[in-house]
Amino acid sequence: MAVQTADTATPASTAAPDFGPAVALSCRECGERTPLGPVFACASCFGPLEVAYEFPTGDPEGLRKRIEAGPDNIWRYAPLLPVPIDVTDKPNLNPGFTKLVKADRLAAELGVTGGLFVKDDSGNPTHSFKDRVVAIAVEAARNFGLTTLSCSSTGNLAGAVGAAAVRAGFRSCVFIPHDLEAGKVVMAAVYGGDLVGIEGTYDDVNRFCSELIGDPIGEGWGFTNVNLRPYYGEGSKTLAYEICEQLGWRLPDNIIVPIASGSQLTKIDKGLQELIKLGLVEEKPYRIYGAQAEGCSPVSAAFKAGHDVVRPVKPDTIAKSLAIGNPADGPYVLDIARRTGGAVEDVNDEQVVAGIKLLARTEGIFAETAGGVTIGVLKKLIETGLLDPSEETVAINTGDGLKTLDAVAPTTGPTAVIRPSLDAFREAGLA
Amino acid sequence: MAVQTADTATPASTAAPDFGPAVALSCRECGERTPLGPVFACASCFGPLEVAYEFPTGDPEGLRKRIEAGPDNIWRYAPLLPVPIDVTDKPNLNPGFTKLVKADRLAAELGVTGGLFVKDDSGNPTHSFKDRVVAIAVEAARNFGLTTLSCSSTGNLAGAVGAAAVRAGFRSCVFIPHDLEAGKVVMAAVYGGDLVGIEGTYDDVNRFCSELIGDPIGEGWGFTNVNLRPYYGEGSKTLAYEICEQLGWRLPDNIIVPIASGSQLTKIDKGLQELIKLGLVEEKPYRIYGAQAEGCSPVSAAFKAGHDVVRPVKPDTIAKSLAIGNPADGPYVLDIARRTGGAVEDVNDEQVVAGIKLLARTEGIFAETAGGVTIGVLKKLIETGLLDPSEETVAINTGDGLKTLDAVAPTTGPTAVIRPSLDAFREAGLA
Repeated sequence: MAVQTADTATPASTAAPDFGPAVALSCRECGERTPLGPVFACASCFGPLEVAYEFPTGDPEGLRKRIEAGPDNIWRYAPLLPVPIDVTDKPNLNPGFTKLVKADRLAAELGVTGGLFVKDDSGNPTHSFKDRVVAIAVEAARNFGLTTLSCSSTGNLAGAVGAAAVRAGFRSCVFIPHDLEAGKVVMAAVYGGDLVGIEGTYDDVNRFCSELIGDPIGEGWGFTNVNLRPYYGEGSKTLAYEICEQLGWRLPDNIIVPIASGSQLTKIDKGLQELIKLGLVEEKPYRIYGAQAEGCSPVSAAFKAGHDVVRPVKPDTIAKSLAIGNPADGPYVLDIARRTGGAVEDVNDEQVVAGIKLLARTEGIFAETAGGVTIGVLKKLIETGLLDPSEETVAINTGDGLKTLDAVAPTTGPTAVIRPSLDAFREAGLA
Repeated sequence: MAVQTADTATPASTAAPDFGPAVALSCRECGERTPLGPVFACASCFGPLEVAYEFPTGDPEGLRKRIEAGPDNIWRYAPLLPVPIDVTDKPNLNPGFTKLVKADRLAAELGVTGGLFVKDDSGNPTHSFKDRVVAIAVEAARNFGLTTLSCSSTGNLAGAVGAAAVRAGFRSCVFIPHDLEAGKVVMAAVYGGDLVGIEGTYDDVNRFCSELIGDPIGEGWGFTNVNLRPYYGEGSKTLAYEICEQLGWRLPDNIIVPIASGSQLTKIDKGLQELIKLGLVEEKPYRIYGAQAEGCSPVSAAFKAGHDVVRPVKPDTIAKSLAIGNPADGPYVLDIARRTGGAVEDVNDEQVVAGIKLLARTEGIFAETAGGVTIGVLKKLIETGLLDPSEETVAINTGDGLKTLDAVAPTTGPTAVIRPSLDAFREAGLA
């Protein structure tokens, strides 16, 4: 086992826990409150817990100015997150405030006339949106005096946890399905923490982690997406905050979000609602759309069938970062898509690859398969009339194409390979 | 040939060329001036041309405030670059203002007590510093009415040009050695421009591009690092500007820069000199160090031998992005290292891999091989007493580890692969 050096093994602060504006955990099902702690399920009804806040109110202009004067990362929103106000003094990867790219060429190709933006989270430190959620989980782990950071992961999260643990001074031990993309495996391992491949699917990995938490082995462990899940999830709110701030403190008409567990989509909705309540943006209708890969589309299937429950599936898709067959937040995603007038749609693997290439050749953004799902679904939503192209739309690219090279490599290579001569260049038909 | 759509084929502005504060090209050898144009060699002495400016003077505080109020990318320094002041209105990848990471854990490991920072340019849009230089070359191409963007590349530049061309609306046709890392080849091709593999080394590719420029085929082509080289090179100045601004508008004691052509190092020195002359930082001594891989170390060899000229070599190193055997700016690098009291050093491939892993496990930054060279050389400079660990040092990571997975993949993988059970976990010795 890779044991880290002594000075990195004691990251926990001896100070009293400080969660900033967060005051409790609250059950999404029964509403019962429980004190802030490393727990994720309601003691009464086993419903999922989320962070409840007491926010500063009454001075939206002051809050807006305070945010704008903050650092160019998610900590500019510290007053709205479960973190201490001095969070920037502690070592962290400082993700966020990624580019919101005005995608005029993609809009032209898709016939979008109301404005199209890509929120490009491949610009995060480990090149996926996971850096956002992990950053919040790290602060929770510090508050709870935990010493090992862990997670079940389809790849991106493993890299994000490995890197964040190193920067923040935790030991890490992360779990992935054994058959992930090479790039993601190397990235998860290179930071020097323990990386364990599990013979099974992501859902098997997840079940194993739940077992580990209940066992004495897991004492002192913070599983970012299990026992730290209520805090972790809050990181996704920052995507909503940034989109609205970067649009000039206003809501877009439509947001398209890829669905793995569904957490990101539900927290984006939570973030938008908070901005409205705090008076940071003007209230207006918005639609949230979910995007899945056909080979793992339980939420899309439930949406189309008009069901309230999500029937688990066994994933089979190249979009491995979305390959969660039993998505924890599936029912909430259905609620939000229906309440806002959005939809949940899916595309097949061929359309995923086409989506990656479309975004690359129109905007110069190389997305991972999850981004291909989002762009593929955007195209399909417009074609089927479910999304109004005369409205303003934001599509979220959650990760980087370099992590899923295999998806495009077979059909992406040199136009020609030639000798270094003008004649050879002419012969290749490129002159 | 991949022809782009009509609306992207006419990117050239019909307005008069506008290079902002740039007033001429000036020969580095004989000083003769020539009008701003797509030329790179002095007509009198064949010396390399660089951009000459008339900068605003007399109000450093006003200039500093103007910069600080600018966008979070290189265009905040538009008043110091050969670009029009409305550059932000034009589609571009908007690179730069990447993180300056305070590397306390790396410092502890290396015994640096004076402060150590990593300028992490893997945060750029295509994850290398090349986005900076290409962004400036794109604006020059617009000014000159060129329609095809091209380059000779060891990989990173090809991706940067491919992506920037798409965003800015140019056709692209880029040239690489045929045997590059898979990630770089896919990244160079995915944006849909033409990508040509050349059977030969980077130096062969470079010679071929020079031939192409002289041929009618090359009419209307902007080779970012050949006929647009004077503009392109200026992009590297922004690394110097950002480092000093992020340190609170002051010079560090030492900067370590990897050497391929040597251009980046010379332009960082130029940028520091400009900041001093403009009164944006207080003048004080600083040292610039160059880092090469042993398998392609012509500048390091010349430095150690006390030579003024650089003898070309045939590269053989895993640090392919630095594998330029005949570095154009080699002699200038020697001048700068000697003038500032720095040095040029090299490390072998094993030390490169160790450098990558050291940075990853101490700071959570996954660098490409060039970054491994820089960190390896930093370590060596301290061990050999050439760099004073009680001084403040900035090391530049120019690219992303996901692009050179092969370097670490053989020695980087899961700690264990197990069945999803607590018993299997215990048996693996990880509990």
